[in-house]
Amino acid sequence: MAETLIKVDLDQSPYENENIHNRWHPDIPMATWVKPGDDFILETYDWTGGYIKNNDSADDVRDIDLTIVHFLTGPVGVRGAEPGDLLVVELLDIGAKSDSMWGFNGFFSKKNGGGFLTDHFPEAQKSIWDFKGMFTSSRHIPGVSFAGLIHPGLIGCLPDPKMLADWNEREVGLIATEPNRVPPLANAPFEKTAHMGKLTGAQRDKAAAEGARTVPPREHGGNCDIKDLSRGSKIYFPVYVDGAGLSVGDLHFSQGDGEITFCGAIEMAGWVHMRVSVIKGGMAAYGIKNPIFKPSPITPHYNDYLIFEGISVDEQGKQHYLDVNVAYRQACLNAIEYMTKFGYSRAQAYSILGTAPVQGHISGVVDIPNSCATLWLPTQIFDFDINPGSAGPVVQKFESADMPLSPDL
Amino acid sequence: MAETLIKVDLDQSPYENENIHNRWHPDIPMATWVKPGDDFILETYDWTGGYIKNNDSADDVRDIDLTIVHFLTGPVGVRGAEPGDLLVVELLDIGAKSDSMWGFNGFFSKKNGGGFLTDHFPEAQKSIWDFKGMFTSSRHIPGVSFAGLIHPGLIGCLPDPKMLADWNEREVGLIATEPNRVPPLANAPFEKTAHMGKLTGAQRDKAAAEGARTVPPREHGGNCDIKDLSRGSKIYFPVYVDGAGLSVGDLHFSQGDGEITFCGAIEMAGWVHMRVSVIKGGMAAYGIKNPIFKPSPITPHYNDYLIFEGISVDEQGKQHYLDVNVAYRQACLNAIEYMTKFGYSRAQAYSILGTAPVQGHISGVVDIPNSCATLWLPTQIFDFDINPGSAGPVVQKFESADMPLSPDL
Amino acid sequence: MAETLIKVDLDQSPYENENIHNRWHPDIPMATWVKPGDDFILETYDWTGGYIKNNDSADDVRDIDLTIVHFLTGPVGVRGAEPGDLLVVELLDIGAKSDSMWGFNGFFSKKNGGGFLTDHFPEAQKSIWDFKGMFTSSRHIPGVSFAGLIHPGLIGCLPDPKMLADWNEREVGLIATEPNRVPPLANAPFEKTAHMGKLTGAQRDKAAAEGARTVPPREHGGNCDIKDLSRGSKIYFPVYVDGAGLSVGDLHFSQGDGEITFCGAIEMAGWVHMRVSVIKGGMAAYGIKNPIFKPSPITPHYNDYLIFEGISVDEQGKQHYLDVNVAYRQACLNAIEYMTKFGYSRAQAYSILGTAPVQGHISGVVDIPNSCATLWLPTQIFDFDINPGSAGPVVQKFESADMPLSPDL
Amino acid sequence: MAETLIKVDLDQSPYENENIHNRWHPDIPMATWVKPGDDFILETYDWTGGYIKNNDSADDVRDIDLTIVHFLTGPVGVRGAEPGDLLVVELLDIGAKSDSMWGFNGFFSKKNGGGFLTDHFPEAQKSIWDFKGMFTSSRHIPGVSFAGLIHPGLIGCLPDPKMLADWNEREVGLIATEPNRVPPLANAPFEKTAHMGKLTGAQRDKAAAEGARTVPPREHGGNCDIKDLSRGSKIYFPVYVDGAGLSVGDLHFSQGDGEITFCGAIEMAGWVHMRVSVIKGGMAAYGIKNPIFKPSPITPHYNDYLIFEGISVDEQGKQHYLDVNVAYRQACLNAIEYMTKFGYSRAQAYSILGTAPVQGHISGVVDIPNSCATLWLPTQIFDFDINPGSAGPVVQKFESADMPLSPDL
Repeated sequence: MAETLIKVDLDQSPYENENIHNRWHPDIPMATWVKPGDDFILETYDWTGGYIKNNDSADDVRDIDLTIVHFLTGPVGVRGAEPGDLLVVELLDIGAKSDSMWGFNGFFSKKNGGGFLTDHFPEAQKSIWDFKGMFTSSRHIPGVSFAGLIHPGLIGCLPDPKMLADWNEREVGLIATEPNRVPPLANAPFEKTAHMGKLTGAQRDKAAAEGARTVPPREHGGNCDIKDLSRGSKIYFPVYVDGAGLSVGDLHFSQGDGEITFCGAIEMAGWVHMRVSVIKGGMAAYGIKNPIFKPSPITPHYNDYLIFEGISVDEQGKQHYLDVNVAYRQACLNAIEYMTKFGYSRAQAYSILGTAPVQGHISGVVDIPNSCATLWLPTQIFDFDINPGSAGPVVQKFESADMPLSPDL
Repeated sequence: MAETLIKVDLDQSPYENENIHNRWHPDIPMATWVKPGDDFILETYDWTGGYIKNNDSADDVRDIDLTIVHFLTGPVGVRGAEPGDLLVVELLDIGAKSDSMWGFNGFFSKKNGGGFLTDHFPEAQKSIWDFKGMFTSSRHIPGVSFAGLIHPGLIGCLPDPKMLADWNEREVGLIATEPNRVPPLANAPFEKTAHMGKLTGAQRDKAAAEGARTVPPREHGGNCDIKDLSRGSKIYFPVYVDGAGLSVGDLHFSQGDGEITFCGAIEMAGWVHMRVSVIKGGMAAYGIKNPIFKPSPITPHYNDYLIFEGISVDEQGKQHYLDVNVAYRQACLNAIEYMTKFGYSRAQAYSILGTAPVQGHISGVVDIPNSCATLWLPTQIFDFDINPGSAGPVVQKFESADMPLSPDL
Repeated sequence: MAETLIKVDLDQSPYENENIHNRWHPDIPMATWVKPGDDFILETYDWTGGYIKNNDSADDVRDIDLTIVHFLTGPVGVRGAEPGDLLVVELLDIGAKSDSMWGFNGFFSKKNGGGFLTDHFPEAQKSIWDFKGMFTSSRHIPGVSFAGLIHPGLIGCLPDPKMLADWNEREVGLIATEPNRVPPLANAPFEKTAHMGKLTGAQRDKAAAEGARTVPPREHGGNCDIKDLSRGSKIYFPVYVDGAGLSVGDLHFSQGDGEITFCGAIEMAGWVHMRVSVIKGGMAAYGIKNPIFKPSPITPHYNDYLIFEGISVDEQGKQHYLDVNVAYRQACLNAIEYMTKFGYSRAQAYSILGTAPVQGHISGVVDIPNSCATLWLPTQIFDFDINPGSAGPVVQKFESADMPLSPDL
Repeated sequence: MAETLIKVDLDQSPYENENIHNRWHPDIPMATWVKPGDDFILETYDWTGGYIKNNDSADDVRDIDLTIVHFLTGPVGVRGAEPGDLLVVELLDIGAKSDSMWGFNGFFSKKNGGGFLTDHFPEAQKSIWDFKGMFTSSRHIPGVSFAGLIHPGLIGCLPDPKMLADWNEREVGLIATEPNRVPPLANAPFEKTAHMGKLTGAQRDKAAAEGARTVPPREHGGNCDIKDLSRGSKIYFPVYVDGAGLSVGDLHFSQGDGEITFCGAIEMAGWVHMRVSVIKGGMAAYGIKNPIFKPSPITPHYNDYLIFEGISVDEQGKQHYLDVNVAYRQACLNAIEYMTKFGYSRAQAYSILGTAPVQGHISGVVDIPNSCATLWLPTQIFDFDINPGSAGPVVQKFESADMPLSPDL
């Protein structure tokens, strides 16, 4: 068995574990070092560090302080990796912690985080998903179960100082355009809740005040939330600092394209078994700015889909110009409406789109003024027939409870 | 063999064929009638009605009058179909015309149409693709061949007067926000080049002045350019007028998600073999606003991909808020840059993204402020190894010519 | 469009077409010549040359003279191909003749041909399958339709004299071990009904008396009946004579692994679009004895299967030693028994196994004394739910007629 | 985490673990009981109970006493299951023991077990495979690695006395036809090395003398060695005794169709997470004699194959009548010959066929006198290009050692 280089104790606060961090900064010391060719295991907290519980209340989703996320494991230094190289990471396997065989999905309140459909679902809700081997199902969402497309929502290397400065400048600049927006346009550095790994004292405080928040994906990868970056895939990361500094966290048991619920996929604590190697000078040789990757040879292969279209005319009938976000939102709303005809609440349907291996395609993006997005709902995850037919939909008699909802206080 | 209900003669102007039209309007008379359960064949022009030729000059792409598109075959009336029903269309098969075994892909000049990357490719270019059975390759783009994912770019039913009025109002409204933009934000009705099928005289003139242009996808489907709506798929269309009025055209031999080159996929003349049936009252029963569909059991199954990420920070480093269009553009540019390392011109690489069965996924759309889009490039379409490796890229010695370019006059 | 080098007229006897032959012999003159790199089209009769008709009687299946089969198109000479080379054949596309959009499947009488389950189905039966684009269904077998995995049952190059002699010697030797068996162990050369292409007179008579029958697959490929050798696949054939001499016929719209019904798949007349090239000295370089091939990138991808096991204990409970034939026969019988629980006759179920894209796997072949074979029945081809469940099978109320049966005279 | 109902200690002899058995007999007491709907974990030894070691000598493969196999975990009693029911077993997940992340593949000496190609590989050889997450590779076989298609080689329910008697009668009868054959035609009961679980004393001795050997697959499933019966699949087993008595063992990390090397797949110790339920009276309702199953939604999806054909003419040119075993043997030998052209020893090539996710199809089984079998070799498991081309094969410069061989003593 490969060595577990970094362990986490789910009963301990992540702030007490010096091999964890929740900001991006080049000064964060390497938690451990490996050599090219090594394979090893890293354990991770869930992205909230254990704040969300396996219960039937959405209070925790409503009340969470989102400045604490994401708790990442690392950084791992790779001997010999230098700026300009590509760090090749093979995700040999990923799993849940054996003492934590469940995950959560939720909608944040519009006042605290929001989500892709926050205007339609403005209040906090939650669903809990149990893992049975490679399958999952939820006591809050009946009639559906599926195999997990397990992946890290967040993985990437440390930025260098120049890159960090660029990030902060452009994101703070964006916030400045509408500083009081709820939810905000972006998240500025925030010193107080920063966890800078092994850094202490003044070094920690300085880095904490500068450290980029972990929420957005950026040039280094980071919080891409790409469901296909799954166990078995192989990623080529740009390297910006000596040793690369690879960190990982925010594991998902499964997620639909877009992670539309934001809180977000089926979130879990777990472990990642990976192998690293280096392509010297690979960034220039291959013209790499963002990470590239190759998909896994093992993924759930549901192949019967019901596909919903959306165009860039919004819910109020307003015309937008080639806006894929608006189009995908319409496709999602169309799918939700459809699922309610079979007995689901709108919240349950929304949660299915956020958790199941749903595909979201950018189908047409040039036919002015409407872009076209498609949402692919796999029919084989349902234990009843969800296809349309001349007899009309059969409303299911679901007996389990709906998703808990916690109104804003 | 099923009956060919509507034929087209590629040597004849589509304006002379009364079973063709290039605008959407409820007054266009049915070209022919069928019964539920019937299967039949419709022939189609390419979307430009034969304007683009199989030669080595892009002058035609530069000079085309885009108010003439798209030449559609139909409308086909279906007995008994009424507003509120769903028209089920099975695409039993699709092919090229036997006297026209080729297609074209191009980039419009920024001054005449543009495209998704028009700021990077502002001048007209063209590539010609030959069909050999179910495969295609281009004399202008070496080293690549693939099986066609044949589909209609445009298919849908006639709007009713209210829907037509809504379309025109919202689109003309958008144009009014920036009336002199090049390319324009949308296309208003344009009487002069309208082809209204069998309509003549004053009726024709009135309808031509009101008829919605065919460029955008809309609630009825229309020009969705969804590559997965391919031969073998099954579509459920909303019905707005008695008889439904199904029209089809703009056939593509293959296309990547997004149809990013706008001129656009591998465009061809051809035929569609389809079967129709009706789900009475299906729109309300299933909550259908836009068409839904089920994919084909037969599609090219390339499964080894190289996946490029893009985030919503643009080419100039400017931060955009969760903008999938910007993110997908970055993913496309990243893929183009990568392909140039193997010997392709940027134009050839762009054309490959527009024509091959490339996937575009909306991967992350909630991680403020960056959305993440991924572009999936199938590696098995190349006749050399396009994967990254420690030895660096092997520059191919391509002998064929680059894509013809016609500068703006 | 590629040139059609050899045409067939379905209203003409194949014996009158000099580009057709029904025996293998090196003296058969090339029907036409092509160059490496050429792509071209060959038309073919169905394997019986039109003997089996689209009607509701199995008399033709019962009465056919099986010494006339298979009517092949060719041989095609390839310039420069020499013994020891590999002839690379790309099956660019395959289709049915447009004036013959149907096919047949049948069971031969045990007295005239038999089949894999001839002891269970000793009398002649027939089903007719209509083609609608890329799909097929049968008026004799309700509740099932599927996309065609179109392929030639028979394709290969001419043998040289030594190989021909070996074939005849070993097969005649086998017949001699049980000369009066019904059905026979093999088919010896038979001069009377031989069609030797352009050969005439004494040359024809000599070759006809020696020509190997076309029924079995042999070293050159021939009547392999491999369903996966489908349109889009690429085959590497051993070359034995100057010019290779490629012939093809026995097209199938679809077939299950094993072609267990013998008469056999969904048999059709049609055309093959192919491209040829040559690997000089390829037989020795790659150690090739039998053809090898690469599968198509486009095949029907049904992926939900019900899998039946069989072991090498026969219907009477007799133990056989690692006999895959017995095991596969049990798997087939198990599947037939299962399907009858849903309302099919045994004959209908047998025909489904012979025609649908059923897989037959050699699962275990070393666990003495029982081999294990599996039969994979795709569930998505049925228009009802054929999975097992706690409520038991729902017997379908099929309204169409059963398969015609013609008792032995 | 589901409860581990039966544990094994790899440092302890399986004979000392009373929840293990190596014969089939209705008198073996249930090791544990569960209820329908329960999910639970069972640990297993490798099939030899730890006899084969992770080293570079094949002496253990040569010297093993094959009367000790297979060590199975169970039987597990299921409350309420009765003869005539179907026991539904969902394989929720399967893995290797964390202290044993390796497996073995070997060829038995022809004098002690043999294998499918024993006449070509008459001496004992072994390869060791290391597991890295979901991938495996071998220090004895360079250039190849692949994702595991993990499955139990052996799983099934206890026979009733009548079924046991039938098994013994027919197998002993077969042995009697050639009692001195090496390897034998079948394995008779053998009291001395029998492990009958919790049975002791005279009861044990009686049952041990009658207990059916575990080598062959039989009506109850048993040692089917079906690679597709993998983690995620769902099996429907016939029930013969009250409580069903489900046992499992012989886990494989990966295997090719046929398990042609007999010692056999990549054999490992591990664990199975399963859920059970019951379909009352399901055997009669569905006409079930042998188990049926549905495949997993998660399997390695290599899709680029090189396919080898074989016909039923043996290595000496002798004609066999429709013998799939002979045909598949030829296909295997053809694939081995091909692989040697790229630098593999014949033993390495044979081992690849036994371990990788190779498919073996019964392609044609009616074209007298030759059956046709195909062997599908996935090309994506090789780290070099193994396709044929006009330049001929590139011989790889493998640096690792060949497979250890231990000559017969």
